[in-house]
Amino acid sequence: MPCGTAGSVKAIPQDVLEELGAQIVLANTYHLYLRPGHELIRGLGGLHKFMSWERALLTDSGGFQVFSLSELRKVTEEGVNFRSHLDGTSHLFTPERSIEIQIALGADIIMAFDECTEHPAERSRARESMEMTLRWAKRSQDYFQSHKHEVPWASESQTQMLFGIVQGGMYADLRRESAERTVEMDFAGYAIGGLSVGEPRAQTEEMIVRSLEVLPKDKPRYVMGVGYPDEIAQYAAMGVDMMDCVLPTRAARHGLLFTSQGRMNIKNLRFAQDQNALDPKCGCKVCARYSRAYLRHLFVSGEPLAAALNTVHNLWFYLDTMRSVRHAIELGDHTGTLSGKLSLT
Amino acid sequence: MPCGTAGSVKAIPQDVLEELGAQIVLANTYHLYLRPGHELIRGLGGLHKFMSWERALLTDSGGFQVFSLSELRKVTEEGVNFRSHLDGTSHLFTPERSIEIQIALGADIIMAFDECTEHPAERSRARESMEMTLRWAKRSQDYFQSHKHEVPWASESQTQMLFGIVQGGMYADLRRESAERTVEMDFAGYAIGGLSVGEPRAQTEEMIVRSLEVLPKDKPRYVMGVGYPDEIAQYAAMGVDMMDCVLPTRAARHGLLFTSQGRMNIKNLRFAQDQNALDPKCGCKVCARYSRAYLRHLFVSGEPLAAALNTVHNLWFYLDTMRSVRHAIELGDHTGTLSGKLSLT
Repeated sequence: MPCGTAGSVKAIPQDVLEELGAQIVLANTYHLYLRPGHELIRGLGGLHKFMSWERALLTDSGGFQVFSLSELRKVTEEGVNFRSHLDGTSHLFTPERSIEIQIALGADIIMAFDECTEHPAERSRARESMEMTLRWAKRSQDYFQSHKHEVPWASESQTQMLFGIVQGGMYADLRRESAERTVEMDFAGYAIGGLSVGEPRAQTEEMIVRSLEVLPKDKPRYVMGVGYPDEIAQYAAMGVDMMDCVLPTRAARHGLLFTSQGRMNIKNLRFAQDQNALDPKCGCKVCARYSRAYLRHLFVSGEPLAAALNTVHNLWFYLDTMRSVRHAIELGDHTGTLSGKLSLT
Repeated sequence: MPCGTAGSVKAIPQDVLEELGAQIVLANTYHLYLRPGHELIRGLGGLHKFMSWERALLTDSGGFQVFSLSELRKVTEEGVNFRSHLDGTSHLFTPERSIEIQIALGADIIMAFDECTEHPAERSRARESMEMTLRWAKRSQDYFQSHKHEVPWASESQTQMLFGIVQGGMYADLRRESAERTVEMDFAGYAIGGLSVGEPRAQTEEMIVRSLEVLPKDKPRYVMGVGYPDEIAQYAAMGVDMMDCVLPTRAARHGLLFTSQGRMNIKNLRFAQDQNALDPKCGCKVCARYSRAYLRHLFVSGEPLAAALNTVHNLWFYLDTMRSVRHAIELGDHTGTLSGKLSLT
């Protein structure tokens, strides 16, 4: 899922996202709550209508963002008090408030409010944090059940899907317990949170495996905030259905490009006179039209087109990686756990 | 002509420019000479190939930009010494050097090196400056005649077109004399320079009229650096064939949008919940898809997509203005002096 933080995948118009084959975009509750405000978006018919995007949307709970404001927030059983990075004003996110905001935004998939456990964390701290996430998951679910008809586009037969989130730090047994107790609550889908926070990749992998052993195969399973192209291919092959990451878009804006030949830093002098496509094996429209020399020139000259073209390429590369994974699964490769599970296509 | 200063119309990919119906793009010799360098572009086959743009290109002479570096340049009969705004290095532009660079860049239309007379200027100063522009025009032409086969894409039957430039400050008789003596030199087309430099609009208009009376109707006539939508329509109706201006693109990046209902500043709070298209009468793809509320949100949030979408709209508005003017001319409106003259379509 490309990240459309404030209701826009940075530098990319919606018709280009459609051309790229993006099926779903993630938007951030924290950002949209602060600006332009969820009530404004609700008043305009919800986020799909606001950003003119008919395909699927997912909003996070806002939890991860407010936990990132380490100096500006305070966590209690009630929720998280934080100060806006925009104007310093004070705000409170609770499970109920997060779901209320996400209902107003009206994404297809919304997330329970969780605590992303810091890394590293002692076992006792990880358990305590996991327990709170479980209590918050219940409060999120209760609020959702009694307010889910309030989504701007709700009908009798249709509303949003609420996903629960597995935490448990880097402790395999806590991950397992968190997954079991979250599954008992019966969510429409399950996310694995609190990973890719600085731990070694083998540990990320282990935590995913332990969680997947418990999470039902007939519901979407989503690893939050990963990763590099080889990581997403690997996790998909392990049975993960959904992933999101700012990496393809953020790296693009910094001139870092993913190609079939590995990573390229487009500002490198050796590309100054290079007439080749960024990635000769790539099918994106940037590689079809522009040379490395031109892309380097745009980047080093600070031209706004650099971000747009680099992002198109990186998103293509990521989405194409997932197309290959899907194809391999259809052919019966790997575990086959993905196929036919998520009907967002 | 949209401005593609450094070989890119800011924030707009080339396929979108094509969709918008842009027939020709202006690029700046000063910027491309400094970065990435004209020799690099020559080595890559010229600017068309470098930026992947098959339609027409025009380069200015670099004169206007270096004169704008008022603290950093010194003008002599030989040419203009200036310091780069990028790194402070010292450079000399002469008529010969400007043409040499423009041949290396390889635009379809290139401009003689002129002095853009400052405003206001005493009559004696305007004459002196005009006389130097005439001498520089001759030197530009001589250099071009003996080097025009060096353009990267030159064939026996095809090379660039060199335009002369009328100066003369705000003195009608000097404008007339400048036009007459420039026409005597026999250029492929003629520009009227040194306007829109702070003078009242009635004066701009008078200087254009005086110049047009002399400039041949069967060659392209180009007013440099104008203007607002109503100005370009007016000048076209007076017999002007070509104009360029950074206004549609630069204003877009500052949130200023041109519409059938006048100018709009998209950051205005009154658009925060406005579900209407930017301009309900506009046929551009931004007006077809997005609301004023969304465009305002993108702009106030500093989203890079704001510049891209605003620029698409403004360019459409400008290019559509010119389409209407052409249509009116075909129907026999106005002076009819435009029709069939410039075959860039």
